[in-house]
This record gives sequence, C-alpha cells and structure tokens, in this order.
Amino acid sequence: MPFAAATADQRFVLDHVVRLDEIAATERFAAASPDVIEAVLDGVAQFAAGEWAPLAKIGDTVGAKWTPDGVVMPDGYAAAYRAYVEGGWGTIGVDEAWGGQGLPFVVQAAVLETLGTADMAFALAPTLTVGAIEALAHHGSHEQQATYLPKLATGEWTGTMNLTEPQAGSDVGALRSTATPRGDGTFSIKGTKIFISFGDHDMADNIVHLVLARTPDAPAGTRGISLFLVPKVRLNGTPNDVRVVSIEHKMGLHASPTCVLSFGDHDDCVGELIGPEFGGMRAMFTMMNNARLNVGLQGVQIAEGATQKAAAYARDRVQGAREGKAAAIVEHADVRRMLLRMKAQTMAARALVYYACGQVDRATLGDARAKERLEVMTPLAKAHATDLGNEVASLGVQIHGGMGYIEETGAARYFREARITPIYEGTNGIQAADLVGRKLALSNGGAFADLIADMRAEAQHATLVRLIDACESVGRRLQGLGNDDRQAASYPFLTMLSVASCGWLMERQARVPEADAVKRTVAAFYLDQIVPEALGLEAAANADASVLYALPADAF
Amino acid sequence: MPFAAATADQRFVLDHVVRLDEIAATERFAAASPDVIEAVLDGVAQFAAGEWAPLAKIGDTVGAKWTPDGVVMPDGYAAAYRAYVEGGWGTIGVDEAWGGQGLPFVVQAAVLETLGTADMAFALAPTLTVGAIEALAHHGSHEQQATYLPKLATGEWTGTMNLTEPQAGSDVGALRSTATPRGDGTFSIKGTKIFISFGDHDMADNIVHLVLARTPDAPAGTRGISLFLVPKVRLNGTPNDVRVVSIEHKMGLHASPTCVLSFGDHDDCVGELIGPEFGGMRAMFTMMNNARLNVGLQGVQIAEGATQKAAAYARDRVQGAREGKAAAIVEHADVRRMLLRMKAQTMAARALVYYACGQVDRATLGDARAKERLEVMTPLAKAHATDLGNEVASLGVQIHGGMGYIEETGAARYFREARITPIYEGTNGIQAADLVGRKLALSNGGAFADLIADMRAEAQHATLVRLIDACESVGRRLQGLGNDDRQAASYPFLTMLSVASCGWLMERQARVPEADAVKRTVAAFYLDQIVPEALGLEAAANADASVLYALPADAF
Repeated sequence: MPFAAATADQRFVLDHVVRLDEIAATERFAAASPDVIEAVLDGVAQFAAGEWAPLAKIGDTVGAKWTPDGVVMPDGYAAAYRAYVEGGWGTIGVDEAWGGQGLPFVVQAAVLETLGTADMAFALAPTLTVGAIEALAHHGSHEQQATYLPKLATGEWTGTMNLTEPQAGSDVGALRSTATPRGDGTFSIKGTKIFISFGDHDMADNIVHLVLARTPDAPAGTRGISLFLVPKVRLNGTPNDVRVVSIEHKMGLHASPTCVLSFGDHDDCVGELIGPEFGGMRAMFTMMNNARLNVGLQGVQIAEGATQKAAAYARDRVQGAREGKAAAIVEHADVRRMLLRMKAQTMAARALVYYACGQVDRATLGDARAKERLEVMTPLAKAHATDLGNEVASLGVQIHGGMGYIEETGAARYFREARITPIYEGTNGIQAADLVGRKLALSNGGAFADLIADMRAEAQHATLVRLIDACESVGRRLQGLGNDDRQAASYPFLTMLSVASCGWLMERQARVPEADAVKRTVAAFYLDQIVPEALGLEAAANADASVLYALPADAF
Repeated sequence: MPFAAATADQRFVLDHVVRLDEIAATERFAAASPDVIEAVLDGVAQFAAGEWAPLAKIGDTVGAKWTPDGVVMPDGYAAAYRAYVEGGWGTIGVDEAWGGQGLPFVVQAAVLETLGTADMAFALAPTLTVGAIEALAHHGSHEQQATYLPKLATGEWTGTMNLTEPQAGSDVGALRSTATPRGDGTFSIKGTKIFISFGDHDMADNIVHLVLARTPDAPAGTRGISLFLVPKVRLNGTPNDVRVVSIEHKMGLHASPTCVLSFGDHDDCVGELIGPEFGGMRAMFTMMNNARLNVGLQGVQIAEGATQKAAAYARDRVQGAREGKAAAIVEHADVRRMLLRMKAQTMAARALVYYACGQVDRATLGDARAKERLEVMTPLAKAHATDLGNEVASLGVQIHGGMGYIEETGAARYFREARITPIYEGTNGIQAADLVGRKLALSNGGAFADLIADMRAEAQHATLVRLIDACESVGRRLQGLGNDDRQAASYPFLTMLSVASCGWLMERQARVPEADAVKRTVAAFYLDQIVPEALGLEAAANADASVLYALPADAF
C-alpha cells in the first residue's frame, strides 16, 4: 500500500482546531502564510513518501546495530537522513536567527507527523533534536546558541536527552551522574545513562548530548541537578570520552538505537553547563514538555498509518458475503465499526495534539492563558493520544485477521511500535499524576475551570455536555483530596477529560461549513458512541484509594 | 521470577463457580474426587514449573525452524514433550475406553491453563490434539477411534485442524481442497492449507491431520465439505504425501510452528473420511467449539502469567517515594490500580472460561439446559477472555516501564503472544456475530432469557443489576433486527454481556464463606469500577448500522 500523508486532514485541523490564521496574523509568525503552509505540508508529504516510507520495513527487520566503533544504521538511512537535511525539513520551527524558518511549533508538528507516519523510529532522530534545540534556545548562552543551534537546526548535528540512569527511571531526582569543574569553565562528566534514543548513529557529523548531572556538593534530589551539553565530537574535532556500551533489544522501534551511554570512562568527558547551576530540572522540563507533545504526536502517526493500512486491506480482501453477494470485508458491519472507530480515534488524537501544539505558539506570542492551557493539555495529549495509538494499532491487526499476526504484512509493526509511546517521556501514569497534582492546582484551579468553561461554551451534543459536567465535578472533587485518593482516580479522570476535550474539538470540526460528509460522520460516531464510554469511567474516577490499599503488597 | 501455577485460584473456581462437586457426584465423572483433582492440579503445577516454563524464553527467541526435512523445535522441546507424554498429562479428559482418565473437560482445562501459563506456544500442541480427539470421539468410526484415540490420548501422536486456505480465511465455505475416492474406501487428498499450528514438528512419532475438503460433485459452500483424517505417517509406516511448504514469521508464538501444508503434491496423499460425507462442518464445529473455549483459556494463561510477572516487578522495583519514604512502585496508587485491575480481569476471565467449560461436562451428562448455556457462553468465553488477556498483558508491559519494552524482561512476550488470541479460532468479531445471530435466537430466545434470569436471581450489586437489565434490553432489541443492525451492535453487546457474566460470577465468588480478603477485594473492585465501564457501551449497543454505512467503502 502506498504511503499517503494526511495532508488534507492536517490542513483542516490547522485551520479549524488550531485556528492557525490567528497565529499567522502576528509579526512573529508572519511566515506562516497559507501558501507557505501548503507548500510545507505537500512538500514533506512527497519527501516522506519518496525517501523515508520505503525504509520502515528494513529499519524494523534489520534494525540499528551496535559495533565497537559505534552504532550502524540499516542501509539507506544515512542517505535518507542527508536528504532530510538538504530538504531543510529540520529548520521548520527554528528561529530565523539560527537559520530556521521561524514557522510555528504546530507546523513543525505537522511535518514530524508526516515523517513519523512514514517511519516512526527514524523520525525519533529529528524529534529528539527538536528537544535539544528548545533547551538551548531557552537556556543556552548566546555563544552556545550561536555555536550549536545552526547545526542542530539543519540536522547536520542531532540531539539527545540524557535523563534516565539504571537506578533512576521515572525518578529523575535519584540520578547520580557527576559534573566536576575542570577549572576552565567546562566540566568533567561521569556516569551511565540508559534509554538514550539515537544516542549514537552514523548519519550525522556530530551528536549533541544534553545530560543531567550533579555538581560537587549539589543538594540531593531534583534540586541539585544541572544540565550539561556534551558533544560526541568536541569543537576542535577530537572525539569526546563518550562510549556506547550497548543498544537495547526492543519489541519495536528497531531503527531507533536505544543506547546505554557511558560518559567519562577515561575521565576525559568534557561538557559545558547549560543555564544556571541547579537549573537542570527547569531546562529538562523545557525539553520534556514539548517532547511530550511530540510523543503524543507519535500516537497520531501510528493511528494514521495503521488506519490507512487496515482500510486498504479491508477494501481489498474479499471474504464472506453481504446481501447475497461476495463482499470485501469493508462491507461487513463489525469491520466498518472497527474502521470507523480507527478513523474517529485518529481524528480525535490529531485534534487533541495539534490543539495543544497550537498553545505552544500562542504562549510564545505572550498569551498567558494559552500557556496555562498548554500545561493542562500536555498530559492529555501525551497520554491519551498514545493510548489511542495503541488502540488503533491493535484494531488494525484485528482487521487483518491471521495475516495481521504475520510480520511481513506490516500491521504488527505499528502494534509493536505503539507500545513504547505510553511509557517514554514520562509514563502515562505520570501524566495522570501531573494532571491531578500540578495541573488541577494551576492558578488555584483557574486553568482547569477555564478549560471546562471553554468546552461548555461550545459543546452542544447532550452526552458531551454530560461528560463535561462529570469532568468538572470529578476535577473539583480531586482538587480537595490528599495524594493517594487523587492518584487513585487520576487515570480514569485523565481519560474522561481527554475524551471530553476530543469531543469538544470533534464537534467543532463537524460544525464548520467546510466539513465534508466523512468528517461529519466520523465526528458523529465519536460523539454518539465513544463519548458515552468515558462516562463509564465516572465510578472509577469517583472512587477513593481505599480499595487499592486494602491489601498488603504481597497480595498482588 | 519463578513460575507458580494458580492452583489455589483454579481450585476455588472449580469449587464455587463450576461447582465441580455436582459434576463429580455422577457415575460418569466419579473419578473426579477432591483428592484426585488436588493431585492433578498440584502435579501439573510442579511439572509445568519444572519442565515447561524454563523453555518459554528459548522458544520465543530461537523458535521453531523450517528445514527441508520438516520443522525442528528449539532445544529441549522434544524432551519436555516426552516428559509430558510420560506424565500422562494428555490423558486427563479422554474417555477411559481409549486409555484416558475420564476426568471432566473443565479439569483438563485447568491442566491446559497451567501448561499454557508456563509456555503458551508449547501448550498449543496438546490443545490442538484435544480438538482432534473430540472430533474423532464424536464422529469417527469405532475402528478409527480404536486406531487413533489411544495414541492421541497419550500424546504420542499429536493432532492438527486444517481449515484455512489462502483464499478462505474466516469463510470456510470457500475452501477448495479436494478428496477423490481411491476405490478402496480411502480418499486422495489434494490442496493447500495455511495457518496450521504444529502442522509439523519433531516431538512425536506421528501427526494426525484433520482436513476439510470437498468430494467430487460436492455442493458449493459449507454444505459440500467433508472431514478427512490424514496421518503424517501411514499406519504401514510409510510417509504420507504431506509437505511443509513453509512456516510463518509471526509477532509471537515462535515456538508454535504455523505451517503452510501441501497435501498430495505427488497425488499420493491418503486420507480417510471421518463421519458422513458432507458432515465436515458439523465435525468441524465439534472441534472448534471446544477449541474456542481453549483459546479463551489462553486469555487466562496470559493474564495469569503477565500479572504474576508485573506484581513481582512492582514489589521489587524501588522508585520514588510514598509518605516521605523510598517506596517500591507497588506502593504507588496508579500502579496498584493497574495491578488490581490485572488481578480482577484475570479472576474474571478464569471464572468465565471455567464456567463455560463446566457446561461442557454438564452437557455430556445430558443436561439440555447446560448445552444451551454452553452455546451462549462460548463466544463470550472466547472473545472476552482473549480481549482481557490482551488488556492485562498491555498493563503488564506498562508496569515494567521502559524495561517492559526490552525483550529480555519477558513482559513483551505476553503482549506479543496475546495478540493472536482474538484472531484465531474465529475472530472475536465472528464470535460477536455468532452471539447476536445464532445464539440470541436459540430456543426462540429462551437460552438468552435463561442466562439473564440466572444472573438476575443471584446478582445483588446495584450496578451489576443495572448492567443485567441493560443486557436484557439490548439483547431483546437485537433479536428483532435485520443482519446489519444486529452486527453493528454485536461487539459492544458481547462485551456488555461478558462483563455482566463475569460480574455475576465474581459476586458469587466473593459471597462464599471460603473467600479470603484478596478475593473479596478484587471482586469489589471489579463490581465497583469495571462493571460501570460496560454500561458506557450501552449507547453503541443501541445504535443501528446507519452510521457505519453512511460512507462509501473508499471513504475509509
């Protein structure tokens, strides 16, 4: 099946959910004129279909390989990456000061979506680079920016995020890597980091590692963490003391080398501080918040790819009969139910993630309300869109029947690749904790109340209105609770609020005059059949923690 | 983590859900005394832990291999299979007349559960053999039974089911394999079959293929299909004309060779008719109905294995803090929510499948009502238990965090293996179609009404009662509808009725005096938090097909 980027759907969401015209009406984003957007979306669609999509299969079957001299990518990746650099696809969202095109973050997201639908594992390389760019743009010195940003913007150099250590997974405060002043303003970095995506590869001239570490006498926990920039190759051209110990053998994403990196084996790993000492967590959140949106975007990528593949199979595969005639399985009601659900969840995930990405740009423009909205939406976009990616990929396998379980078919790849997305960049459970903890408390509950008010002002579908009411009531209840009770209800509440948000944005899309029959039908299915499911979570979202702690740990 | 069979839970379900004492009180099943059952459950638990569980990893990583001389199993499998034969584990449910132990089907299911929790791919070999035994026991001539059943009962020979052909997946009526009389009462078989689990291997002396094919001038469709027995090695010791063309490269179940078999390449494949000509579909349903229960049982196997693994990890993995102290992740509320959900869904799946298996034995004893109940419960047990296996395996990966995505951890294996179970032995969509088609219509709706009445007589939990009411109302509505509308609602209805059935059996378990705090807590969680979710499906179960057919096929 030929790959086809969802250009028209992206455009529709940019126009009617994101309301990009409002963003483009500002001086800062004046470059985002309708014709530029169209050229970008169409251009990356063509590029991804031609250069990237054909690699996904070899990427999955051969995978990146560890060698003593570093990680070697499968055949074709280095050339396709060069084409990406030459096409300027890395520069979309980067400030013009650093050689970028200065387009909105949400447009960059659309570009990443298309690249990731073509080959999600490959698209992790640019995605991680975006995180490094954000961190440097916000926290680097002017000199650091001038040195690194132009190369990162083009993609000539790629970026990584080095948070996790073997003893410290989701608990970043437990990290032990050290950074010792060398007396010349630089630091000697020492420690082991795991789960470093594209921690090494042979596609770019250099890799810019952003590494969290502790300076001498730093306080314990997250307060004592600083961020360091550690290039694979120093600016003078000599290799830095960074070693790829191994790469993981994963269920999927085989073209994305997940590295164990050892810094300073020979006490000669040079890094420079980014931002102030002990400013590591703040800088990390800059990287991570946008990375969370970009992981939510991977849910969209998988959902789009899996839906296209399953729909093509269902139209093609003749099996059984309907109304007395041999029929393709797309004619069977339960297959249609699955396909319509896949289309609806894809459209919902895209609306949710793009909406949140649009808030990044509005916040950049100084809109304080958008900044708060972004904070509330980030856990929803990350967690719910990745949950939807998993659901849609699983339905995609199901529609293929026995063929779906055979690797050569390709449906299984989406299913395997989807499964990491609820885990990395903060597990979805951590997103739920963030929502009911920090986010419900923002502006003394005002940020949440604003979201509810916006949804209520626009929602008309009766079940959606009921769901919004239920979200408000649960959210208010949670604001007054202690930690265990709040956490107990966090995941069902996150799902309810996500579905309410999606329902709101789906109804908005169905309402615009430009919506065609497909959009209206898919939105109606979402509102009539998926929104009610979220009301089924109300009991769990209203339960306290007592049942969870009724048993001792060893009873599990 | 050491493997531990869920012997106590199995025993509890046999006692209080299946009410095995009633079955064992009959002459036919007098062998099933409490001490025999205990010896069987404990014995297979020890056997599976010692001989089978250690193979699961090599089975997954090395897998069965195709060679020109046939399929070769990974190291250790042939010996472990011999130990299974010698232990008599294949003989549990087989009639004493054929060398079996004559124990109830549900006890055999418990044995298969334990074997499959140890190594699900491996346990498919005995599972398929059970299907062949059932077909021969019900439809074979006495001579065929005397020739084949003793060898199949011990497992010295294994059995296969040959239904699917490349052009005919779920649509069995489209098959083209032929069976031509050879003039001596035997038939010459010709055709290609795909997706044949354990279609070849090197663990047994012979393989008994049960093959659906058409005799000359047979009517089209399912009415013209007959069942044939085709041994890999003829009784005179010469090889039959059956060739393993290839084995599939699957997402999981690597130790279970999924074969493409070619019968009669040299026009010398000899088979014998089982049952009457054109009796193929009836015989196939004998095999398939029990096979469906055994696939439902795989959902239990996966859920049990994944839950044990995740719980052990959660107790062990220290991460973050609770109440100011470093804590294992099992102490975090959202991790507990996931674990409790896993335990609840595992308990629910086991209750549902064992309950259905118990009806097989009651039907064997001549209970006509049990026979109908079995028919209604079979699609629920197959579809819902496998859906739960997938859900639980996914939660298991999630609890492991990043480690869950690394293959060496083992959580991913459950996730990959689970994914086939909603597909084979009739996709879950086909189960839903069977439920709303044939099963709701049984005895003019009486079989369904009986189930509702039984649930209502026992259920006390208010939400469960509401769900039972909703199921009754939806079921009655569906009985009056045309095919498309019925099918449109089939899957949501199947899930609602399955959850109602599970809730009914969970409440029953919580009520008995022998229930400990764990069972009562897990059941309370199920009733309070999972049952309400099924009510969220009511809108979809009450929708007609119009939204599904609002768009043309090419709009998907």
